[in-house]
Order: sequence, then structure tokens, then C-alpha cells
Amino acid sequence: MHAQAFKVGMRAPDDVSEGARLIDRGAFRAEHVVAILGKTEGNGGVNDYTRALATLSFQLLLAERTGQKVAAIAKRVPIIWSGGTEGLMSPHATIFTREPDRGAPGGAKRLAVGTAYTRDLLPEEFGTAVHARVAADGVRAAIEDAGIDATADLHFVQIKTGALTTERVNEARRRGKAVVTTDTYKSMAYGRAAAAVGIGVASGEVDGAKLEGDVIGHEFSVFSEIASTSSGVELMNCEVIVLGNSRRSTSELVMAHAVMKDAIDAGGIREALRRAGLAVDAELAAADRERLINVFVKCEPDLSGATRGRRHVMFEDSDVNATRHIRGAVNAVVASVTGDTMCYVSAGAEHQGPPSGGVVAVLARAGR
Amino acid sequence: MHAQAFKVGMRAPDDVSEGARLIDRGAFRAEHVVAILGKTEGNGGVNDYTRALATLSFQLLLAERTGQKVAAIAKRVPIIWSGGTEGLMSPHATIFTREPDRGAPGGAKRLAVGTAYTRDLLPEEFGTAVHARVAADGVRAAIEDAGIDATADLHFVQIKTGALTTERVNEARRRGKAVVTTDTYKSMAYGRAAAAVGIGVASGEVDGAKLEGDVIGHEFSVFSEIASTSSGVELMNCEVIVLGNSRRSTSELVMAHAVMKDAIDAGGIREALRRAGLAVDAELAAADRERLINVFVKCEPDLSGATRGRRHVMFEDSDVNATRHIRGAVNAVVASVTGDTMCYVSAGAEHQGPPSGGVVAVLARAGR
Amino acid sequence: MHAQAFKVGMRAPDDVSEGARLIDRGAFRAEHVVAILGKTEGNGGVNDYTRALATLSFQLLLAERTGQKVAAIAKRVPIIWSGGTEGLMSPHATIFTREPDRGAPGGAKRLAVGTAYTRDLLPEEFGTAVHARVAADGVRAAIEDAGIDATADLHFVQIKTGALTTERVNEARRRGKAVVTTDTYKSMAYGRAAAAVGIGVASGEVDGAKLEGDVIGHEFSVFSEIASTSSGVELMNCEVIVLGNSRRSTSELVMAHAVMKDAIDAGGIREALRRAGLAVDAELAAADRERLINVFVKCEPDLSGATRGRRHVMFEDSDVNATRHIRGAVNAVVASVTGDTMCYVSAGAEHQGPPSGGVVAVLARAGR
Amino acid sequence: MHAQAFKVGMRAPDDVSEGARLIDRGAFRAEHVVAILGKTEGNGGVNDYTRALATLSFQLLLAERTGQKVAAIAKRVPIIWSGGTEGLMSPHATIFTREPDRGAPGGAKRLAVGTAYTRDLLPEEFGTAVHARVAADGVRAAIEDAGIDATADLHFVQIKTGALTTERVNEARRRGKAVVTTDTYKSMAYGRAAAAVGIGVASGEVDGAKLEGDVIGHEFSVFSEIASTSSGVELMNCEVIVLGNSRRSTSELVMAHAVMKDAIDAGGIREALRRAGLAVDAELAAADRERLINVFVKCEPDLSGATRGRRHVMFEDSDVNATRHIRGAVNAVVASVTGDTMCYVSAGAEHQGPPSGGVVAVLARAGR
Repeated sequence: MHAQAFKVGMRAPDDVSEGARLIDRGAFRAEHVVAILGKTEGNGGVNDYTRALATLSFQLLLAERTGQKVAAIAKRVPIIWSGGTEGLMSPHATIFTREPDRGAPGGAKRLAVGTAYTRDLLPEEFGTAVHARVAADGVRAAIEDAGIDATADLHFVQIKTGALTTERVNEARRRGKAVVTTDTYKSMAYGRAAAAVGIGVASGEVDGAKLEGDVIGHEFSVFSEIASTSSGVELMNCEVIVLGNSRRSTSELVMAHAVMKDAIDAGGIREALRRAGLAVDAELAAADRERLINVFVKCEPDLSGATRGRRHVMFEDSDVNATRHIRGAVNAVVASVTGDTMCYVSAGAEHQGPPSGGVVAVLARAGR
Repeated sequence: MHAQAFKVGMRAPDDVSEGARLIDRGAFRAEHVVAILGKTEGNGGVNDYTRALATLSFQLLLAERTGQKVAAIAKRVPIIWSGGTEGLMSPHATIFTREPDRGAPGGAKRLAVGTAYTRDLLPEEFGTAVHARVAADGVRAAIEDAGIDATADLHFVQIKTGALTTERVNEARRRGKAVVTTDTYKSMAYGRAAAAVGIGVASGEVDGAKLEGDVIGHEFSVFSEIASTSSGVELMNCEVIVLGNSRRSTSELVMAHAVMKDAIDAGGIREALRRAGLAVDAELAAADRERLINVFVKCEPDLSGATRGRRHVMFEDSDVNATRHIRGAVNAVVASVTGDTMCYVSAGAEHQGPPSGGVVAVLARAGR
Repeated sequence: MHAQAFKVGMRAPDDVSEGARLIDRGAFRAEHVVAILGKTEGNGGVNDYTRALATLSFQLLLAERTGQKVAAIAKRVPIIWSGGTEGLMSPHATIFTREPDRGAPGGAKRLAVGTAYTRDLLPEEFGTAVHARVAADGVRAAIEDAGIDATADLHFVQIKTGALTTERVNEARRRGKAVVTTDTYKSMAYGRAAAAVGIGVASGEVDGAKLEGDVIGHEFSVFSEIASTSSGVELMNCEVIVLGNSRRSTSELVMAHAVMKDAIDAGGIREALRRAGLAVDAELAAADRERLINVFVKCEPDLSGATRGRRHVMFEDSDVNATRHIRGAVNAVVASVTGDTMCYVSAGAEHQGPPSGGVVAVLARAGR
Repeated sequence: MHAQAFKVGMRAPDDVSEGARLIDRGAFRAEHVVAILGKTEGNGGVNDYTRALATLSFQLLLAERTGQKVAAIAKRVPIIWSGGTEGLMSPHATIFTREPDRGAPGGAKRLAVGTAYTRDLLPEEFGTAVHARVAADGVRAAIEDAGIDATADLHFVQIKTGALTTERVNEARRRGKAVVTTDTYKSMAYGRAAAAVGIGVASGEVDGAKLEGDVIGHEFSVFSEIASTSSGVELMNCEVIVLGNSRRSTSELVMAHAVMKDAIDAGGIREALRRAGLAVDAELAAADRERLINVFVKCEPDLSGATRGRRHVMFEDSDVNATRHIRGAVNAVVASVTGDTMCYVSAGAEHQGPPSGGVVAVLARAGR
């Protein structure tokens, strides 16, 4: 496998022009795109339709350039958006390709990408152990698809899953079924939680037997260090993207990850950059800035209501959701280290990294 | 002069309990309080009444403990709030006191505090050169009050000024007078701009002759490196707090300042900390964290719509004001260096530091 | 008892000038004020501090004019605010007085006002049957205070109760106690629900035995037609105001109520106006507009997600809370009938009127 | 011409299923669709991408069913959305068709529909007299297209125009050109204003000579009673839909209009319904509810800051834009008369109806 990745800025959720230009000048072929992961500029909440617009726009681009139907693209290429580019965060997509090998593998572990789709969940399954098991099966399929041999080589597993809407809740009720929550905004958290636990089960970080208890959405000492999940009303299944390294890959790119202990843990970011082979002093060395493709981060407000003992007001704010606050804060911390505000920071880190902290993964051009 | 400063957390805008406890245990006397500067947890906009509530609450505390009337406190002690503690920012106040000297000055320059009040502005004067001149006169009075000899010893000049409301606009119109803007939210920006230019005139950074042109709110290459201004509907004059150093002060504290070139310029923060005598590597040295009292920062979104070339969406967001976005981002950058989310970050940096950047001042316990 | 009521507009949450002027010109005496019920211009959510500011401001006014301490006023005069004046709604207070009788009762039933305070609730009691029972006891005390003989003469019972904050939740957890919800915004709904069921128990509309099941916040077919409850972080007990009619009252005012079946049921509003003796065609007759003092309404979005079969998006909106949407809508419906946007419309009608509808009470000058 | 109109509900901005079903069962043919006008559930602001998503979704539907390219549909069928379904408002589209005549005209004036597109405006032309003139030319072309003979037969003229973005502002600046405002949200108001004045010029309500002065966005005594304009970043030209009556039409539908004097003027709504031939007492007669297709309304907060003398807080609210507040309020007033929350209420009524009021047009099945 020869995997590539291209970070493209977006002037609006339907702006696919940078990707189109890359195809035009031969940087990659539309047929080789296997996954897209990005940030759109909506509110990141239930009614954030920037995700749907961006998905449709990239599907139309790939359909046009490959001659395939949109419906076929939708079944083959997971396109996952996390809504919400608060603060300085710059809307963008990372386009992943898988292409024929260019020569033989060089011996070093290099970027490998795999994907999978699961079945749709019923409203009453949503946010439950069933949801987690379905997610875990999807992750295993994507790991196999990526050709990654050891779970230690997994560095970032992204799942996009659904959310409950008033209509889905009512539909379940009509059938006499209970749902985990009737609060549509909160259902997004349950979706992220179930998918994250599923990733942990597939990666071996979480004991599958744990699923029987009341873990999902409650027991946050159970977590995966490589899980990143987001949710949105536009789907009801799990779409999975696995990013890791493999000796069989001939990619020029490499993945690494570390953990942020809390929202201002710039040290965790520096550690992830170093693990990817980049030189970092207080900030990413100027000479290595070109080598950085993207940073992928999950985060959440400190659940205690205080960060390092200092009160925050995110949970008391009835105007702006806590997820919006924390994304803007953590993006700024990342950018103050890398110099680049165009990175992927997604909130709602239930079971994704330690409580009140999160996952930080780095995708970079490998050193020689 | 022996100046002290106490940073007190607030559980709500009317929570003055930390200050009360400090008085109770003799850390300072209510009679010696000369100024209070803090952050409240409102939206920072036109209808942010957390500022008024916090002001009234502290006035009632000081009135109770001094036996003075609230009205007398209101004329003697500027209490200035910047609304908006987005992201991780922790609501708090810094209480400044001026007390009888404790021994003779030691030769080193130490914290000096001065204050002043100006007359009320008319709606039609608001945001104009008249406003700037009134502000400049206030700053000169406060510098004299502080006993600061050289403008080079000024490190942070805070002005709180007013804002136009629909009623004030209509009142001016009834008298046939024009106002700088009828947009109440935008009037806050004009207020900040006029006050900041006034500070620059008083500090010598800005040529007073500049006031005649269309500088205020437009020509942002004209700025002060030590100006910090905020605005709110609750007043229509300028309340001034001057912070600097003086050889005549016997304070144990010291001020310093630097400039942030943009919102992710952690280097500017490190520089200000070092100028205050603190040890900083990538982050503030653990041993010196106790010495830091507070960091005071002004910031604004990059006016070009992009930070270091990467698009931001703050000006396109019709749900959350740009000032809310940028405060949360910059607070996180500061906290990632100092380890403390309880710092003063205020947005709307018109003429306060370089365009798209801002002022960063540090108040710390002096080294031995 | 001679009860009066004065509706005063507010230019800001701390604007008590209209009330002060009424006292100045002898319309009523500060000593006779027994309750204040109003609308402030905050977001109506967890962090709506306009309520606290308005309370403190009216307490200071009454303290100043009576020579009593603020603390004494706070124990004697319930001052209850519903936050949120969305749409056209005009911020205001209705000030209720009880004064010495002026002559003998005339035989007709006229306005009677009673009040009560309950004990503080523990976080773990909040939103439970204990909460409802405490509320019911408070309502019974207030009915007795009002001198209302029959529950049929009750027309509007207002309770203000508390809300959980992150700190209160954590405090309970430290003691090993569970709370009904850890979502601070949702706790406001539980508080309103428990208080409303308590009103129904006291008025005889709800069977006290129902409290043992899972009724509160869930079984909305259980409701009171005269209950109005609101919640806010600024307290943890119940403050009760009872409004009804009594033959022993010499007031010139009269109360009446009806029910709105849904948010656009203008017919319910017309019915309540007519029951208060006012002439109504499509709109309140011009000749009777002077007689209307205020309309008090509780409302909520249709829980099915649709109003008369047409989808609404209030529950899907992650930017603006559903309570904000519905208040603005229902205020406009009331005002289109009465011609007056200054009325009391409060959202969160759990157990207050029929599901998706609410209580509508009218206070008017009695006809001759 | 045989014109039809179908109001279809939408479960999301990309839900075109109701329209698809109508085509499937032969209610109309995709080839005959000439215009679509609707409400989407975004914030109605600069970053409301629900409009773009809905447009693309309906274009894809029409392309699929006609076999035409999306680009061809985009040049032939104006699809205009007003964003923002606050309060009870139900997201929907009204689909207009023009079909071959079915028999000869019956003598009565019936619905006629015409459309037009103008050229793109430059950023520096946006919101100016040039913009108004371009709009007026477009309206004249659409009137001719509709076959409407007299301006008295015009009842609703809808224009969708663009908005300035930070990028468009910067692009103009690079060419040394000034723009009417650099505030992207405010630019939407200028766009609406220029287009509305253009409609007035074309309808003869506004003297074209007025354009030379500072009328647009300032002198609101200049207005059209039939203008409805909205703006959004997704375009930079004017798309025009003209609705009126013509003796040459064989449609079964009829248009009428009246004016709302202010936001609670239910009388204006009743008048428009009656002019369309519907029976109205306090509310639309039950027997005639089936005949009502849709109500189209423009509205705005009273510019004085008060509605019938009562203060509103819409202009002081820094969390929720005034346009959001007023749409929810006026929709509720309309629905309280018609019983149907699914109607078109659009805010920003600059020059569209009298100041602080707006246009109200009714589309109904003609009586026999």
C-alpha cells in the first residue's frame, strides 16, 4: 500500500476547490481516495448541517471525477466531519488515498489507512452495549483493511456515528422501545461514548466484558488512547477510519500519538510531535514545520468544573455549549506549539483519552 | 506607597467571599482598596449585566467593611470588569490596595497604582476625538496619582468606558445629534478605540495631533503597547487604573509587559514573564509559579480573516461573537504557558497593541 | 386586606426607578410590598444573573425606603424573576402590596395575595418527591396567609426554586448522594416540575399519593392549571406567591385564569380575559385596555416536536434553547390579543397546565 | 399560463422527499417547476449554510427527474431560502410551477409567476444605488415573464441577493475599492435594502430619482408594500420571483396582500386573508383553512427600541440576533390567526413595508 494524505482548506462547507485543484494537477487520483476526515464551520451540535453539505459536496466532486454515482461513493469512501471550528480553528479536510505501491517497502513503519462501515443502529440500540459491539466489529474490519498487524501500530481510530432526533425518539416510542436519552444534544454524547468504548474493545485497551455494566457514558476511567468519535444526525451507523503504521506500507508519511492530560497540556502535544520524529523545543522547530501534515485531537472540559483547580464556567453556560468552548481553547494550545491553526480538534472525548484530557495524534512526513 | 494585589476567584458574579475572607484575616484593609480589575462570566456584550452585579457586590462589601456609603465607594474605587470568561478562563478579580509604607524604598522599581475618573460623555461625543481627549486627561491624572515618574515605567493602563444603547442613540437624535454608530454592539468597539488612543496620547506613544483625522476605530497602525480598554452600558465616563513601577514604591510586586504579535504568539507571553523576572523554559518554571500574581492580556481576531495565513471563521459566525471566540483561544495559550487559567484576557484590542495582536502585562512577586 | 398591584417597566435589570417614583408620589408605601414577580432580560438559563441583579436592586430600594436591612427584606418579600424576554417581551416587574383595609369588603371576590418561604433543599432532594412535599407545605402556608378560603379561588401560584450547579452536584457526590441529573440546565426543569406538582398537591388538583411514583418530570398528564414555577441557581428553597380572590379583600383588582391548549391558542387568552370581566372581540376591546394590569402565562414547546402537526425545530437547536424560542412566540400571541407586549410569559411548563400548553392568568381592575 | 403552488414540509434542509412524492404521484412535473421559495432551519445569518444545502438538494432532485444538469437547473429555476425558523415556524418550501393552460381563462384574475436573474454585483457595488438599479431591471424582466399587465396586480416580489464576506471585502480593498460596510452581518441588511428599493422602483412605488441620495439602508419612509428580500453569502447577483394575478392565468390560485403596521398587528394578517377571499373572524374560519396555501411575511423589530411604547431588548441582545427574535414572534402571531405554523416569515424588512412593520401576502385557492 502507498498511502498519501492531503490537508485542504475550505472557504465554506461546500468549497472543495483545493481538492479539485490537487486532482487537476495530478497530486492524486479521485479513484484512490479512501477516506476524508475534516472540520466544518457549523456549531457542532444537533442542527449542524455543515457536515451534510460538506459530505455531499465532496461526494459530488469524487463522483464527477471518477464517473461513479454519488450513491456508490457514499458506500465506499467514509467522509467524516467534526462540526465546530471555534476560536482560531481553520475549516479543512484531510484527504487520504491508497495507491499502488511505488517500489518495495523500506523496512520502516509507515502510514496505513483502512476503513469500514457498520449496519444502521436502531434508536433503542443507540448509545448501548449493542452500539459498542457493532462499532468494535467495524474497527476490526478496518484494521484488517489497513493491513496493520499489531494493535501497538494503531495511532488514531475515527468513528462517525449518529444521534437521536425527536423523530427517532418518537419512532422508538411508537414501537414501545426506550432510548438512552430523549435529549437530542445529549444523545450525541452517548453515541460518541459507545463508539469509543467499541474502539477500545477492538484495540484491546478495554475488556469486552465491561460492556455489560453501566460503563458507556458513565465510567470514564475506561478509555482508549487512540479513539476519536463524533456524532451527527445525518447517519445511524458507524463509519470507521483506522490510521496507523505498517511495515508493508510504502508511504512517505508516519503516524504517532500521545495523550493530553488536560486541556492546557501543551507537553502532550510536544510529545506526540517528537514521537512522529519532529524537532520541538518550546514550539515545533521552524525547519520541521513543512513536515507536519496534521494534528488530530480529542478534548473535553474538565468534568470537575475546574481546570487544575481553577473554576471554569463551561457547564453553566446556557448560551454556548461546552463543546464549543473547549474546541476553541484546545485548538489554540495546539496552534501555539505548531504555528498552525488548521488542525483537527474535536470535542466530546467520552472514553477517548483520560477524563478531562484526550487523544493527540500526529501525521507527518517521515524523516530520512 | 506600599501597593498590594490579591487575585480572588469568584463562584458567581456576586461572590465576593474570597475578598471578604482576606479582609477578615487581615491580609488587607477595605479602606486601602484603590481599584479592582476582573473578569466576569457574562457574554461580554451589550446585555452583559454580570459586570453591574459584580460591581454592586464589591461596592456593598467595601461599604460594609469601611462603614462608607456605596455612593462614596463608587466615586473613590474604580471597579472594572471585562465580561466573558470563554473556554477555560476562570472568573476572578484582582484587588489592588495602597497602604502606608512599610519601611523605606529599596531602590528597585516596584508596583505603583493610580486611578482617576473622568466626566460623563454625551452620546454624540462617544467614540470621537473628544472621548479620546477626555480619556487622555484621565490617564495623566492617574499617572500622577500613582507617583510614576517616567512613561517607560507604565506597563498597563486600564480604562473602562461606556457604550451606546438604543435609548442613548434616540436621546441624541431627539437633540439633533449624530452618533458614531447606531449598532449598540459596535459602539462598544468605538468606546474601546477612543479610550485606547487616549491612553496612547497620554503615554506619548500616539501623537495628539493624530486625533483630528479618522484614526479612531479605523487606523490600527496607531496603537499603544500598554493600553487595555473595555466598555459596557453601565457607565458613560472613563474609569482609569494605571499600573506601573516606581522607585518610591515599597511594594513586593513588580510589573512588566511585552506584546503578542498574534493570538498564538506564546513567545510574547514568555517574554513578558521573563521581563518580570520569572524563569521560563517552554512553560513557566514550576519553582516560580507561586510568584505569578496575574497576566493581563488584550487580544483580537486577525482582521484579515486569517491567522498566519489560515482562515478563521470568527467574523462569519452569527451565533457567537468574535470577541467570545478570541478570548477563549488566547486564555488557553496563556494558560498553556503559565499553568493557570485564571488570568485576565479581554477582547477588542482596537489600538491596544499591534493589529491582530495585543498587550500582555505580568504582575509578579519580585525576586530577591 | 387591601391588595394593590403595579406593573413597572425596567430599562435594565437594576432599573428600579419606576417603582421608586410610585413610592415617591404615594401610590404605595415600601412597607406594604409583600411580593414582586417579574421578567428580566437574561437568557433564562443557568448563568442568567439578571435575576440576582434585579433581586438585589429591588431589595436595596425597599431597604432604603423602609429603613430595614437587606437581609430582613430578603426574608419577608419574595422577589421572583423569570429570566428571558425574547422577541417582543418587555422587561418588567409586578409589585404586589397588602395594605390596611379601605372600608368594608363589597361582597364581590377581589384580589388576595399571600406568600411563604420553605427550607433549603439538599442537592439530593432537589427535583424529587421531597422537593414537591416541601413546596406543597409552602403553598398551604401562603394560601392561609392570603386568607383565601376555597381552592377554586386560587388563580395563579408562583414558586421560584433553585437549580443544581456543578458545585452542588459535586458536593452531594462527596457525601455519596445521587442527584436527579448532573446536567445543570436540565436540573432547572426538574426543579420546576417538583414545585409544580407540589402546587397541584396543595390545590387538590393532584393526588398526593402520586408523588411516590416516577411522576415528577415524566408523567405530564399530571398537572395543575394554576401552577407557575421557575428556577435559578441563586436559591435552593421555594419562595411562594399565591394570587387569588377573596370576599374579605377590599382590593379594586380581580384575578381569573384559563388554559392555553397549545402555544398558538389565542382562544385561551381571550377566555381568561373574559373571565376577568374584560370585553374581548378578536382583540381586547380598546375601552378595556386600561383595566388590564398583567397577563401571566406558562408555556412550553409541543413535546411531540410538532405544533398542530407541523414540525418545529426547537428541540434540535443547539444554539438557542427551546425555552427561549417558546417564550418569544407565546408572548407575541398574547400581545396580539391584548396590544401589550409587557406581560409575564415564562417557559418550562412541566406539570403547569396541559402538556404542550400552559396556564394563562389575568389580573385586571374589576368592573363596576 | 396555468400556475400551481405546493407547500412541502422539510424534516431537514436536505429533505426533498415531499416534493419527490408529489412528482411521483403526478401532482406536477419537474420540468414545470419555475421557482422555489422556502424557510430553512439555520440561524439566518452569515454562516447559515442550510440555505446552500437546501438549494443543492432541490437542484439535485430536479436534475434527476428532468435529466438536466444541476448547472442548467441553477440557471433556470430560482430557489430562494430565508434562513431561520425560530419559535414555532416550520421549515418548508413552496414549489411554483408553470404548466400548459388547462382550458381558457375564466375572466377572474388568478396567480401568475415570473422569474429573472441579474448579473453578479461587485463587492463595491453591493448595497448601493447600482445594486438597486440592477435589482429593478431584474424585477421588470420577471413581471414581463409572468405576463402581469398592471403593477396593481403585483402582490409579492421576492429577491434573494448576496452578502459581503471578509474575503469579498478584502478582495475589493486590494483593488482600492470601498464597500458599504465591513461588518459581514450588517452587509446582509444593505443587500436586502438595495434589492427592496429596486423592487419599489420597478413597481412604481419608489421614485427612481431617490436612488441618488442616501436612501438605501437609511431612509425607511421610502418603502414598497410588496417587496420581500433576503440575502446570503451563497450568491452575489439577484434572483427574482414575482407573484401576482393575471386575467390570462388559468390557475386555481389567487394572491393578495396587506400590510402589518407592527409586529403584533394581527389585524393586518386578517385583512390580507380576507382580500384573498377567505372568511376570517378572530381566526381563519375552519371551513376555509384548507384553501390557504401559504402566508408570506416580512418583519423587523420596531426601530425605536419599543413596540407600542413598551421597550424590547432585541437590539441589546449580544447572544441572539434581533432577526431571530422577530421572526419567531411574528410567525406566532400569524399562526394564532391561521392555525398553521408552517408559513414564510422573513426578517430584515428594510424598505419592505412600513418601518417596524412589513408586508403580508396570502396565497390561497380561489373561491367558486
